[in-house]
Amino acid sequence: MLNEISMKLNADQLIQMALREDISWEDVSTNAVMPQAKAGAVDLICKQDGIIAGLPVYARVFQLLDPETVVEFHCQDGDPVKKGQLLAVVRGDIRVLLSGERVALNYLQRMSGIASYTHAVAQLLSGSKTTLLDTRKTTPNCRIFEKYAVRIGGGSNHRYNLSDGVMLKDNHINAAGGISQAIRMAKDYAPFVRKIEVETETLEQVQEAVEAGADIIMLDNMTPETMEKAIALIGGRAETECSGNVTRENIARLVDLGVDYISSGALTHSAPILDISMKNLRAE
Amino acid sequence: MLNEISMKLNADQLIQMALREDISWEDVSTNAVMPQAKAGAVDLICKQDGIIAGLPVYARVFQLLDPETVVEFHCQDGDPVKKGQLLAVVRGDIRVLLSGERVALNYLQRMSGIASYTHAVAQLLSGSKTTLLDTRKTTPNCRIFEKYAVRIGGGSNHRYNLSDGVMLKDNHINAAGGISQAIRMAKDYAPFVRKIEVETETLEQVQEAVEAGADIIMLDNMTPETMEKAIALIGGRAETECSGNVTRENIARLVDLGVDYISSGALTHSAPILDISMKNLRAE
Amino acid sequence: MLNEISMKLNADQLIQMALREDISWEDVSTNAVMPQAKAGAVDLICKQDGIIAGLPVYARVFQLLDPETVVEFHCQDGDPVKKGQLLAVVRGDIRVLLSGERVALNYLQRMSGIASYTHAVAQLLSGSKTTLLDTRKTTPNCRIFEKYAVRIGGGSNHRYNLSDGVMLKDNHINAAGGISQAIRMAKDYAPFVRKIEVETETLEQVQEAVEAGADIIMLDNMTPETMEKAIALIGGRAETECSGNVTRENIARLVDLGVDYISSGALTHSAPILDISMKNLRAE
Amino acid sequence: MLNEISMKLNADQLIQMALREDISWEDVSTNAVMPQAKAGAVDLICKQDGIIAGLPVYARVFQLLDPETVVEFHCQDGDPVKKGQLLAVVRGDIRVLLSGERVALNYLQRMSGIASYTHAVAQLLSGSKTTLLDTRKTTPNCRIFEKYAVRIGGGSNHRYNLSDGVMLKDNHINAAGGISQAIRMAKDYAPFVRKIEVETETLEQVQEAVEAGADIIMLDNMTPETMEKAIALIGGRAETECSGNVTRENIARLVDLGVDYISSGALTHSAPILDISMKNLRAE
Amino acid sequence: MLNEISMKLNADQLIQMALREDISWEDVSTNAVMPQAKAGAVDLICKQDGIIAGLPVYARVFQLLDPETVVEFHCQDGDPVKKGQLLAVVRGDIRVLLSGERVALNYLQRMSGIASYTHAVAQLLSGSKTTLLDTRKTTPNCRIFEKYAVRIGGGSNHRYNLSDGVMLKDNHINAAGGISQAIRMAKDYAPFVRKIEVETETLEQVQEAVEAGADIIMLDNMTPETMEKAIALIGGRAETECSGNVTRENIARLVDLGVDYISSGALTHSAPILDISMKNLRAE
Amino acid sequence: MLNEISMKLNADQLIQMALREDISWEDVSTNAVMPQAKAGAVDLICKQDGIIAGLPVYARVFQLLDPETVVEFHCQDGDPVKKGQLLAVVRGDIRVLLSGERVALNYLQRMSGIASYTHAVAQLLSGSKTTLLDTRKTTPNCRIFEKYAVRIGGGSNHRYNLSDGVMLKDNHINAAGGISQAIRMAKDYAPFVRKIEVETETLEQVQEAVEAGADIIMLDNMTPETMEKAIALIGGRAETECSGNVTRENIARLVDLGVDYISSGALTHSAPILDISMKNLRAE
Repeated sequence: MLNEISMKLNADQLIQMALREDISWEDVSTNAVMPQAKAGAVDLICKQDGIIAGLPVYARVFQLLDPETVVEFHCQDGDPVKKGQLLAVVRGDIRVLLSGERVALNYLQRMSGIASYTHAVAQLLSGSKTTLLDTRKTTPNCRIFEKYAVRIGGGSNHRYNLSDGVMLKDNHINAAGGISQAIRMAKDYAPFVRKIEVETETLEQVQEAVEAGADIIMLDNMTPETMEKAIALIGGRAETECSGNVTRENIARLVDLGVDYISSGALTHSAPILDISMKNLRAE
Repeated sequence: MLNEISMKLNADQLIQMALREDISWEDVSTNAVMPQAKAGAVDLICKQDGIIAGLPVYARVFQLLDPETVVEFHCQDGDPVKKGQLLAVVRGDIRVLLSGERVALNYLQRMSGIASYTHAVAQLLSGSKTTLLDTRKTTPNCRIFEKYAVRIGGGSNHRYNLSDGVMLKDNHINAAGGISQAIRMAKDYAPFVRKIEVETETLEQVQEAVEAGADIIMLDNMTPETMEKAIALIGGRAETECSGNVTRENIARLVDLGVDYISSGALTHSAPILDISMKNLRAE
Repeated sequence: MLNEISMKLNADQLIQMALREDISWEDVSTNAVMPQAKAGAVDLICKQDGIIAGLPVYARVFQLLDPETVVEFHCQDGDPVKKGQLLAVVRGDIRVLLSGERVALNYLQRMSGIASYTHAVAQLLSGSKTTLLDTRKTTPNCRIFEKYAVRIGGGSNHRYNLSDGVMLKDNHINAAGGISQAIRMAKDYAPFVRKIEVETETLEQVQEAVEAGADIIMLDNMTPETMEKAIALIGGRAETECSGNVTRENIARLVDLGVDYISSGALTHSAPILDISMKNLRAE
Repeated sequence: MLNEISMKLNADQLIQMALREDISWEDVSTNAVMPQAKAGAVDLICKQDGIIAGLPVYARVFQLLDPETVVEFHCQDGDPVKKGQLLAVVRGDIRVLLSGERVALNYLQRMSGIASYTHAVAQLLSGSKTTLLDTRKTTPNCRIFEKYAVRIGGGSNHRYNLSDGVMLKDNHINAAGGISQAIRMAKDYAPFVRKIEVETETLEQVQEAVEAGADIIMLDNMTPETMEKAIALIGGRAETECSGNVTRENIARLVDLGVDYISSGALTHSAPILDISMKNLRAE
Repeated sequence: MLNEISMKLNADQLIQMALREDISWEDVSTNAVMPQAKAGAVDLICKQDGIIAGLPVYARVFQLLDPETVVEFHCQDGDPVKKGQLLAVVRGDIRVLLSGERVALNYLQRMSGIASYTHAVAQLLSGSKTTLLDTRKTTPNCRIFEKYAVRIGGGSNHRYNLSDGVMLKDNHINAAGGISQAIRMAKDYAPFVRKIEVETETLEQVQEAVEAGADIIMLDNMTPETMEKAIALIGGRAETECSGNVTRENIARLVDLGVDYISSGALTHSAPILDISMKNLRAE
Repeated sequence: MLNEISMKLNADQLIQMALREDISWEDVSTNAVMPQAKAGAVDLICKQDGIIAGLPVYARVFQLLDPETVVEFHCQDGDPVKKGQLLAVVRGDIRVLLSGERVALNYLQRMSGIASYTHAVAQLLSGSKTTLLDTRKTTPNCRIFEKYAVRIGGGSNHRYNLSDGVMLKDNHINAAGGISQAIRMAKDYAPFVRKIEVETETLEQVQEAVEAGADIIMLDNMTPETMEKAIALIGGRAETECSGNVTRENIARLVDLGVDYISSGALTHSAPILDISMKNLRAE
């Protein structure tokens, strides 16, 4: 999860690229009206209720432009925030406040949008034994930020990418010549620290997966009824994950099935942003 | 706009980074069940009605993994597509088809989501003299893809970034000491090929902007009534842009004002994805 | 224009590459005679009259080698400087002063050469209404430095690159099928914040360009007489730019034509350097 | 020296950066008038007499945009060329021909300018035993191209950078505590494949350098008379290099001294470009 | 595991950097004697018995210099090879064969050295139920190559890095306040696809780890007797790994303990190279 | 040689890549048990007698993760160290100490292993006039570290890479058409600051090399008797280097030959690591 160390080691280069995407050679407007450095401050204000996520990324954008920039936070990642609430005050060279604003907000709004949406979905699972998971359906070159936002919103992370988790889908199963065969090949091949997850669509496949020793069995696009039978059949011999176009609107039907995990791509691919803006720039 | 040349020069490194984000060192699942190259094909199938955008990016993902991969397109960017429609067939090493799938779809779904949403909003302006614009509220490190998707959806692009357009907002105006002063400083400073755009919130500001020779006047968060007066006051002496939380739901009230441009951040920051998937992988 | 922000965001990586070009793995000579850090100072001395430009870049070279290096400036960018004048004193680890010397001077001499030459040419236009412009004929991977030097010398910048300005040359016009057609295509295609510039060689073309609504009309390689007619014909309906092998030697004939802009590639591609050196290294 | 191998390994990334400097996200003008690929050709024509250098770099610019581009050369690097001469024909996608033109010419003009100037200076040494050398006074991030151009023009290369040659200047000598001491430290420290060069300003220093076993003795800013004495004193026990503001205008006085090498920074830092242009773009 | 796809996506940039490390700007010796391309061939010959590993990396080095280079293999990775055996013939531009030789051999010799050493150690475990594992004690920026070589030699891979596996060492346990607490925190925090491994030094710790639900228990630096007791105590409720300065010389005592895995850092950090050379260069 | 300047300019990016190789997105184990920064210290302890090398690189690893990390050294590079000796104490955020440990040790152990092995070999030459040299048989992307370790161990460096030294091997000689021809071509081609080294296998070749003016003559795989004759034949007219599978075990026979240099690839390609570990992590 993004912290001070991974921010510098793994996120900085992405943030710097995003800054260069927005400032190829200079901020013409700002430089026109402000030829010299000038100390100032600006408020970060919430314009919509939600869960805030990404404040350290927001601050980092300005600090990569000028390490002297100071952000005074009035809340922290994971806090519920209200329309109109003062979230933070940013102090530094006014040119930096102006030039970094858009990139900083683009990160913060998107991350907070994901956290807010995740939180709403996770709430629907509260009280059940089921954990909400994200997927790899993240925006290209934003995964480290989006998976962090999911956790801040109360979700959990599935594997990070293709290198750190084994998931045998229908195509892998076909290629291997069947579920048992695929699981055996994965156990032979994958580093032994990996759990083996396999995707199933029928009770027969579930049965085969259990017998072949799958660690995790994904129940893909099954009806709630079939899922119940599958979970009974598995009987605790493997962890269970339910998947397939799960959104805030349709998750209710899945709550009481007793599945261990429900994964939802919508958390990262379709959450609208949380509206946040910077206001009241003043010299100081 | 993204084409063969900018794909290679400007987009390839982003796509490659996205691939490395998903494959830090190998695709364990695929390599487990498929130790050798094997020729195959897979279908790209639409699961929701909309406008398709990003097919060349989709294809490029696979070709960066293996230049031998061939994509046979059954439609092209900008086409309306239907649920169930076969969009393309991808042929190549099955390992490449499996390993590139997620990144390719992550781009295609997001770009098509933006194009579909933009198209819907642009439709609401059809028949009017008003052009729909995007903003800089894009996902970090995805601007080249998202601005392209807006055009494919029937929108137009505002400035690309802080370096290629002048937009004097309230903060710049304050810094300069007034609208006239800000416009004069911008004309002095900016390369002469730039148009000068200035943000206004009152009719007095509009008046001052016109007199100071602004090329474009943004009417920010004004009521429709005030906007009408502003447009009359400007009387063709500058281009006009209307801005402020414009979405598919609320754009109707703006259609008949006669404003030249309406810009909407929602096109890129809040469009849900278009659901598309890869199916029917087979050996060939 | 290069300032503290764009230096760090956009110029640092170029400067660092230039340092690695000169120090692939170590400075053998310095390391041989100076095995340890040792505090010292060295003078930056002008060896030729001219306009100084690039002092912040000069300082940045040393600071990228060692952030403790301190440069005490005795003049600032844009100042006229004289042979023998002390421009600055650099203090820090003597190894840094020695190892950074060449790269720092290579930037400073080139930038000052451009500023000096530009200043001389701009002087010839003083009193007229005409502004001196640079071009894209800059040294590869030095544009951010060279366009800055032109401004310091009293010139103005034309577009930065192919992405932020529209210039329709003869080849574009041929491709489009005529000037009116080219201008219409550009207005349709380019972001609306762009002005459209078109190159003309005859009065007929000028006429067509005006009528098609070009924002800027370039008069390319015309005789002074034809240019006068062209400017009269345009009559203020578009801005005018005169271009074509303009140098210090031949610009006089163009001064009184009343053209808005004169652009000269020579400013960046053929200005000789300004001779500057580092002397009097001493331990401190 | 730049060839097919070092072009790909060492120069490609510089050329690609130069292309991205000129095309941050797209070539607006070209894309406006030419929405699709179209086959064409364009002529490369010399506008000034000189020595051509950089043709492979010129071609590489286009091929990095599109590997299908073909350049048919009518001359090769090192050839004397005449005003009006057809140097090459470039064939490919017209968009590539237009978008790559400026970067390609920026390299070719600069390199040919250096080759032409070097050739002129080297001519003045012809018949003597003296070899003309370049220096490290090259344009940042262009050294590989400029040192190549010097060779094409008939000059030779001094050390490439601080890592591959030992040159003990006054500051190194002071740091070491004298010439003998500096030479001894360098012999101890530097890889044994390095020759040791030392800078001298007086005959006493020359004497000390010879006795300390310097491989190369630089005679820095000496009068021709002193140089003659120095060369006699050295008597073949070390190679000799003459240095100090050598230009085309003042080299004559140095020709008959019998010095082994004369180095001139002007070859790379003050050579004006050779004027070359691309004309007659046509569809094919 | 390194294959055609991860070679291009994940290994190419490392190989290219290695080439630039060896050729900063050109191969002076080769270019001196071979000014033009010339077709030739050279033999790859084994000079020591062992297991060959890294042939695709060896070939890739040449192909990154020139894609036309063709390598005809006479063996494949994992084959036992003998002193004097012809392993491959490389055909292409002789300059490429000469310039790529050292980097290609540096990779091949090291990888084959690791495979050979691993093979020897793995042999000592053959017939037992114990699997040989590598560690993260790899050479910086060579992990992808070295972990591949271990597999080729008959070993298996432990986790790839800190991001894809959980291993709770004494310091983590102290930080958490005990083994049970550390395991609970890891289960809460880590993506659910991770197995949790914990390091133990005493039987009490083993007991606690089993009860807390560790997936893998590492027996660190225990005597064979204690290990036997630990394995009995665990009784199949977790996988077991034995660790601590395991080398070819001392592994015998561990073979019959019935531990599931033995990990050895020596496989990658102390294997001597396998001697291989390129001979018989000839024009073709 | 690696010092504060080349560390930052030339080594930092390699170290950062090595850190990213080990931490693709986060250190899961550490972050699980230590959610917040916490001050601590850890000891660096030697587990084997040897020569320590790489302490500044070791420290740099932690400082690149967090510049606040402080390393208190109890010895310095080149010191002989003993099993059990406290080498340093590292103080900082415990998460940084844990996350950087492996990469820091991977560098330090390998560099100290090389220094220790080199020291042992160099000892065998002590008292003779012969200097011990390394080769280009280094680990890819580790040359700057490994060549430094050789020097710390008491060896000297041969050329750094193909760009900064001329070595004419049998293949170059064949390509040129003989030794005299190859030397002449190299003298013509190479920058004049290069010494020309040529490889010889017979006394006839030695004779030819001397006469052609080689600066250094390598005696390749000759018997000690032939080498003695060769050295006599050369009679001080060129420097001499002996080469060919020289290791600690077989160098004795070469000590009294009077050769100037002996080069050994084993110094860098086959030295086992020096065992060093980090212990006693505690909060502070």
